[in-house]
Amino acid sequence: MAGNRSKLAELRRRQAEIATQIAELEAPVSPFAPERFPALAPVEGVRFASAAAGVRYRGRDDVMLAELAPGSVLAGVFTRSATRSAPVLWCQQRIAALAAEPAAGTLAIVVNSGNANAFTGRHGVEAVKTVMAATGRVLGLPAGNVLMASTGVIGEPLAAGRVTAKLEELAAGLSAGGLEGAARAIMTTDTYPKGAGAVADIDGVAVTIAGFAKGSGMIAPDLATMLVFIFTDAAIERQLLQAAVSKLTVRSFNSITVDSDTSTSDTLLVGATGKAGMIPIANRRDPRYRAFKGALGGVMRDLAIQVVKDGEGASKFIAITVTGARTERAARRIGLAIANSPLVKTAIAGEDPNWGRVVMAVGKSGEAADRDRLSIRFGDILVAENGRVAPSYAEEAGAAYMKRRELEIGVDVGVGKGRATVWTCDLTHRYIEINADYRS
Amino acid sequence: MAGNRSKLAELRRRQAEIATQIAELEAPVSPFAPERFPALAPVEGVRFASAAAGVRYRGRDDVMLAELAPGSVLAGVFTRSATRSAPVLWCQQRIAALAAEPAAGTLAIVVNSGNANAFTGRHGVEAVKTVMAATGRVLGLPAGNVLMASTGVIGEPLAAGRVTAKLEELAAGLSAGGLEGAARAIMTTDTYPKGAGAVADIDGVAVTIAGFAKGSGMIAPDLATMLVFIFTDAAIERQLLQAAVSKLTVRSFNSITVDSDTSTSDTLLVGATGKAGMIPIANRRDPRYRAFKGALGGVMRDLAIQVVKDGEGASKFIAITVTGARTERAARRIGLAIANSPLVKTAIAGEDPNWGRVVMAVGKSGEAADRDRLSIRFGDILVAENGRVAPSYAEEAGAAYMKRRELEIGVDVGVGKGRATVWTCDLTHRYIEINADYRS
Repeated sequence: MAGNRSKLAELRRRQAEIATQIAELEAPVSPFAPERFPALAPVEGVRFASAAAGVRYRGRDDVMLAELAPGSVLAGVFTRSATRSAPVLWCQQRIAALAAEPAAGTLAIVVNSGNANAFTGRHGVEAVKTVMAATGRVLGLPAGNVLMASTGVIGEPLAAGRVTAKLEELAAGLSAGGLEGAARAIMTTDTYPKGAGAVADIDGVAVTIAGFAKGSGMIAPDLATMLVFIFTDAAIERQLLQAAVSKLTVRSFNSITVDSDTSTSDTLLVGATGKAGMIPIANRRDPRYRAFKGALGGVMRDLAIQVVKDGEGASKFIAITVTGARTERAARRIGLAIANSPLVKTAIAGEDPNWGRVVMAVGKSGEAADRDRLSIRFGDILVAENGRVAPSYAEEAGAAYMKRRELEIGVDVGVGKGRATVWTCDLTHRYIEINADYRS
Repeated sequence: MAGNRSKLAELRRRQAEIATQIAELEAPVSPFAPERFPALAPVEGVRFASAAAGVRYRGRDDVMLAELAPGSVLAGVFTRSATRSAPVLWCQQRIAALAAEPAAGTLAIVVNSGNANAFTGRHGVEAVKTVMAATGRVLGLPAGNVLMASTGVIGEPLAAGRVTAKLEELAAGLSAGGLEGAARAIMTTDTYPKGAGAVADIDGVAVTIAGFAKGSGMIAPDLATMLVFIFTDAAIERQLLQAAVSKLTVRSFNSITVDSDTSTSDTLLVGATGKAGMIPIANRRDPRYRAFKGALGGVMRDLAIQVVKDGEGASKFIAITVTGARTERAARRIGLAIANSPLVKTAIAGEDPNWGRVVMAVGKSGEAADRDRLSIRFGDILVAENGRVAPSYAEEAGAAYMKRRELEIGVDVGVGKGRATVWTCDLTHRYIEINADYRS
């Protein structure tokens, strides 16, 4: 027994050594990382800059500035966490104020990574005010026209001075092409920057949309634990933009989950500069409103899926479509119960076609499901129907399907017409490595 | 790059080799496993037997029979899963029927491990009926007096014949001392059998309680994903026993979580034989009712904590006490939000005093909390107060505390007087190993 113990200790020592060597050799990049950042058409009226302020990280940009031309409108959606960060509270207040009284002049957004400025008490509020006031001075606009977002460690005071020291450099560096740099500056445990865009023909006018997101862990609905900034040159009234963004969030950022945890800092801001040369969309029944929503929804969904594909430790991407639920909302809750189940996620990591765990997760969702009409599909393979394994199902077919990198799970719960799709990733050793070490 | 790739492949090969050697040397037993099964006083009127039926496992007992003397009463609490197993539906029906019309004669409970008989359609119902009828024949009692529970793989047909083939052997082997064997026979991924008991002096009468539980993964409230069987010689009216068990479940089995997943098979049965030689407890205001509840509650809590301590891959045991919530129920929901957070659980596995993640989890619970009055303690160490890190807190003290095997996290959310404690374990590599391979 003592001999075993010393042998075990020696084996563990060698195992740790090898793990270190592997970590050194291995670029820790998601298998879903794209070859390169997408080429996005510039959005007229928006400029970006990024800089290395040394908030926490060294040797990389960690602060970004976006500037929106006068006449722009902003919409926002934020975390519903009860322990929201100081920047989120500031943004919510400013979005409400700008709704009551539109901004005069330029708008600006400042974002830092490395420190979330969350749970930092009065100091946190002061830090936001300091950055807002300094940005206003440097850009020559009221502090109230500046919004802020922060992401990173919770509970440590934000060194606002490090951000403000970079504002002149940021202002001087503003350019329409700075979007990719901005997308990189806001990353934390992300393994690639996430960008998406669209150019839509809306009643003969080319409307451009371009945006970027960060988020990798602490991803769950309300909102999907991340920062997202999207810009368009569409001309649209503020309240219509807000209505579109709020509605589209449900089927994009609120339909993804990595680990069921919800951040204190989730922020989605969408700015419209109105520079596309069109009569502003001012009415819900304007057919251009629907066309614009379609294009914006596509960009939001693209970014949401990119966040899941960069989920901490992800080796598989899974789209779960639930049909036959009472309502769309019920279908989404069932989908998220499956997507958040550690047992489902580890089975997928192990390439085990363990559909019994899908049944379990449906059962715990709290939504109506008819056990005896339940059916499950892996891709096109019918796995279970009428409350039991399908006669045609062969375990080998399921096992072969699970070897794919991108999976589709279909579940019909047999009680109604509600339908929803959610997206998630698997739960791997790498998630544990990242989160047992990284201080977020 | 190609050189790196082949070097990586070689390192991974060596890593896998070492992991295999470690797994072979290592008895995969929870660090919290007790030295031995507790010595439990026999409960008069209950006998147990176990046998190896080969339902799924080889070379170990996997079926148990418990027999309760005539005059016994039974109470039960079951999973609220919408995809409940056939045995659970049977038990619920029988418990309701026995409430309407008390059983004549002996009662029996048959339990098998290795197959949950869940999501098995008509075949599953038939399998239960087959076992019930055969047990009734062998023991000479109505099939309706027999209850059943099953645990293990979901979605595979239960070979009822393997169970019924062992009934004669089980009936012949019934003994008061068979409890430990029964506790072993119902294990699945459990690394130790879980038993607990008490002898309470209730108004001069020695009342004995003894029970056992299984459960290790798929553990979350409603009910805590496991099988639990508790027996007592107390004389108590059936509806009072049911009331006590239902109420005590909230602060025991519904206050624990390993992985937030809820089983299709959770079953808690409590049988009272009435053999202690006392006038039956027949009134809620009888002071003996309170004394009995105290003793039973202690046994239930003991078993609940043992289940968490055998949580799949657990290396740390954590008691989370939430105070200052609106209600006890709100406090429990906040506690479970913390206990179920993968980010909190991985931080604890990594011995990282990452209290920011506790803040995050409080925020996402959906219950009222005053961010600016929130305080957090690790054991006696005040970590945060008034919505920010405590001036007295030193990171080294937090880090030293996290090295303990048993941890206490205290959170006051500053809005009321609600208080609750929940118990959980950490999320480790071993959880992933167990669940990426084990088919449950």
